[in-house]
Amino acid sequence: MTDQLSRVFAALADPTRRDMVTRLSVADATVGDLAAPYDVSLQAVSKHLKVLEEAGLVSRSRQAQRRPVHLQAEVFDLMTAWIERYRQQAEERFSRLDAVLAQITTTETDTRQEGTAS
Amino acid sequence: MTDQLSRVFAALADPTRRDMVTRLSVADATVGDLAAPYDVSLQAVSKHLKVLEEAGLVSRSRQAQRRPVHLQAEVFDLMTAWIERYRQQAEERFSRLDAVLAQITTTETDTRQEGTAS
Repeated sequence: MTDQLSRVFAALADPTRRDMVTRLSVADATVGDLAAPYDVSLQAVSKHLKVLEEAGLVSRSRQAQRRPVHLQAEVFDLMTAWIERYRQQAEERFSRLDAVLAQITTTETDTRQEGTAS
Repeated sequence: MTDQLSRVFAALADPTRRDMVTRLSVADATVGDLAAPYDVSLQAVSKHLKVLEEAGLVSRSRQAQRRPVHLQAEVFDLMTAWIERYRQQAEERFSRLDAVLAQITTTETDTRQEGTAS
């Protein structure tokens, strides 16, 4: 997996990591803060954070002693852009279907009216 | 991975599968149709389709001879709902920050004005 979008989707394919992201959307947090509600080791939490970090979803301050984890909200735009593109295509597809159905209905009505007239 | 949202994110963490979904958003397609543009075996394509099917993203007709693959667009709502929830939380966080900053600015202005008045 080389592309970032794949890494973002893969990073979010885990309920614990999604929960971490949800909590980081409320406030920055240290690894200790993040580990508190889960029944897992600090090492396991660090591993999850590394996956989120490699996807670009979170960043950690190199300077600060507490090294709080910060959510990189702009990365969500990648996913939104992808979903939006899909939505547009699906909508266009349905618009075309509607147009075809409208055409069929009109043609059928015309044929029926012509039949009645003759 | 038991929950569907994890399966959906995992299914989309692959560029070939995302490309298949994009194409299926335009029209239903057979396995043969889907395999055509890729330099992979039909077997590899079937494997990708199985992952998408298990995530509930696509379905295949059991009856029809061609068994076209159909995109289950409503599954995207799961992701949209999750992203939307995150967005709301992030927005609320920034609204609170704005309120705090506005409060600080007002207090500072008041203090400065008081200082000028005395």
